[in-house]
Amino acid sequence: MPGVVDLHERLSLFSEHWSPKVVARLNDYAVKVVKLKGEFVWHSHPETDELFLVVEGTLVIQLRDGTLEQHVTLGPGQLYVVPKGVEHRPVAEGDVSVVLVEPEDTVNTGDASGPLTAVPEDLTAS
Amino acid sequence: MPGVVDLHERLSLFSEHWSPKVVARLNDYAVKVVKLKGEFVWHSHPETDELFLVVEGTLVIQLRDGTLEQHVTLGPGQLYVVPKGVEHRPVAEGDVSVVLVEPEDTVNTGDASGPLTAVPEDLTAS
Repeated sequence: MPGVVDLHERLSLFSEHWSPKVVARLNDYAVKVVKLKGEFVWHSHPETDELFLVVEGTLVIQLRDGTLEQHVTLGPGQLYVVPKGVEHRPVAEGDVSVVLVEPEDTVNTGDASGPLTAVPEDLTAS
Repeated sequence: MPGVVDLHERLSLFSEHWSPKVVARLNDYAVKVVKLKGEFVWHSHPETDELFLVVEGTLVIQLRDGTLEQHVTLGPGQLYVVPKGVEHRPVAEGDVSVVLVEPEDTVNTGDASGPLTAVPEDLTAS
């Protein structure tokens, strides 16, 4: 049977930003951890909702749906689900650590692709 | 767009044990919070994995697969995915608060049913 995942311990294993790591799998979903700093690219996931749970720091997720622009602000222990197809841009002032839950094949840059597209490393506990 | 979910705030809204509440939805999955105290029933979920993330307290999950019996112990910030079909029994010494992620229609008592079966209340943020 697979092991217990300690989120802080898993996050201590790397330092790069915007590069999600898979720490657990749940059916065809993955639990990923990622460190964020600065502004990401605007993108959407046309096929899936995406869950953000903040572990450390403060994360702003800018959202736009047509002409409507909003944002949510998340601190530790707070989560938000970006609905399928809604354009969003994570913005992190300082270092932010986040848990993502989404179908495992979800690409971090969604429909935008580009140089920030990352293939998730496997950091599942053995 | 739906709101930000603060896990501690949602957990402060109720006191009963073994009665999961839906705090967010992710496609056909639900994020549930639940308070645990004492021993639950042995059960399995033949159709799905089940994710436990501890928010407060210490949770033991007893596991058995045929004759093999093991357990994992989870503290705050630690998660474990019980594989599909594996019999398990959560045991909480004292009060434990947990986040569950699983398909929304997953029943808390799985294949065991019985008096502890609970229909999840909707506590999604508005």
